[in-house]
Amino acid sequence: MVLAYDGGPFAGWQVQPGKRTVQGEVEAVLARLCDHPVRVHGSGRTDAGVHAWGQVASFATASCLAPQRMLKALAALLPPEIYPRALSEVPQEFHARYSVRAKTYDYFLWPATGPALFLRGRLWPLARELDARLVRQALAVLPGERDLAAFASRNAEAGSDGSTVRRILEARLDEGPRGLWRIRLTATGFLRHVVRNLVGSLAQVGWGGLAPSAIPEMLKAGRRLHPGPKSPACGLYLNRVYYGTWPGVPKLT
Amino acid sequence: MVLAYDGGPFAGWQVQPGKRTVQGEVEAVLARLCDHPVRVHGSGRTDAGVHAWGQVASFATASCLAPQRMLKALAALLPPEIYPRALSEVPQEFHARYSVRAKTYDYFLWPATGPALFLRGRLWPLARELDARLVRQALAVLPGERDLAAFASRNAEAGSDGSTVRRILEARLDEGPRGLWRIRLTATGFLRHVVRNLVGSLAQVGWGGLAPSAIPEMLKAGRRLHPGPKSPACGLYLNRVYYGTWPGVPKLT
Repeated sequence: MVLAYDGGPFAGWQVQPGKRTVQGEVEAVLARLCDHPVRVHGSGRTDAGVHAWGQVASFATASCLAPQRMLKALAALLPPEIYPRALSEVPQEFHARYSVRAKTYDYFLWPATGPALFLRGRLWPLARELDARLVRQALAVLPGERDLAAFASRNAEAGSDGSTVRRILEARLDEGPRGLWRIRLTATGFLRHVVRNLVGSLAQVGWGGLAPSAIPEMLKAGRRLHPGPKSPACGLYLNRVYYGTWPGVPKLT
Repeated sequence: MVLAYDGGPFAGWQVQPGKRTVQGEVEAVLARLCDHPVRVHGSGRTDAGVHAWGQVASFATASCLAPQRMLKALAALLPPEIYPRALSEVPQEFHARYSVRAKTYDYFLWPATGPALFLRGRLWPLARELDARLVRQALAVLPGERDLAAFASRNAEAGSDGSTVRRILEARLDEGPRGLWRIRLTATGFLRHVVRNLVGSLAQVGWGGLAPSAIPEMLKAGRRLHPGPKSPACGLYLNRVYYGTWPGVPKLT
């Protein structure tokens, strides 16, 4: 299934005792619908406050409910902060986490003075202007095989092979209406906090505190040479997960 | 001063004992800044959950703080749901309520299936499609002198002369990105719940449950001949208050 959610009220994706989590809410509703306990596997965790437009999750069930009926029931029973966009049957070998080929994250920020009054919790209100040209210079050199260790948090999980190298496929800045910025990153994988730390450094580049070349230097050095802010969770959206050509896996933009 | 606020967390504009209100928050901060109790007069009340982009409020103070410094201090001390957009000195005769010439209200609705996940509390998610042509037909005949009694709530206050007649100056529908609708109404005054009741009837027109001509018929009859839904508070925004040519009154769009 493909899930959108507002991460604001949740302690992240992953089930934690005594906390409200997205996985916990989805599993609780699915257990009611399927009449048996259900373990849901997400494409990956999202941290507390991080949103999703296209989180993908898979589960096994003995239920005879048709996918379209289950989707409607999920939409009716899930809390309003979670919206199930699609659901379909997939081969048993499919696993929402292990079958991932690539992911796209969007980070929304608002580099302007003034309040993001009606977008609080939806983006990073920077309250200062950034130079888009400089940020684009830094983004332009990101695609390719990169060791993401410099921007990962210390407790990030490496891949199954212990590697922190991923292939960055897309790194772009789009300027939307009213000066809203979207930084879009697509890679074969992300380590914990990479997008938020990277966006924090990109903001430094944008206000002139860091040269665009500092980003590839830090990637090469394997550590964040210039301490910078981690951008807040509320600007981050898991936009899409790619699985190649698995039959039955919904393709949603 | 011109105030923007997210009405969601407030029990409306007006001070009420034991409740969190916009007026209450503003008066508390001004009392700290001015070193004396301050009574703030708004251009009018907004109900619980109703937002403002351009609420205007006036107050008298003995403080020597320059307006620009007071504005910055207000921005720093008010809660994040209230943003003071402008503040300036005005003649003593000016009164934010009694000097009003006209007001513009915007109502945002989303006539589409699917969730307004990231705009919850910011608009009315109708979950059904509306016919813009029909709604525009109904809006086109609104401007002019109208008795608004039909769409006012029973406990609405009439004007100081007891009249429920106002001049509607503007009534339009604008379609924004992703199918977002904005219904904009400007009038020399509004009675309580007029915009929300009117938008509720306009939605009925849009889905074919009511002829466009029913709206002027109801205005003429002085009552809502066809019971319909009142649209929710969360879609309503006090956009702008007009005061003519009062010197010093900030003109913000």
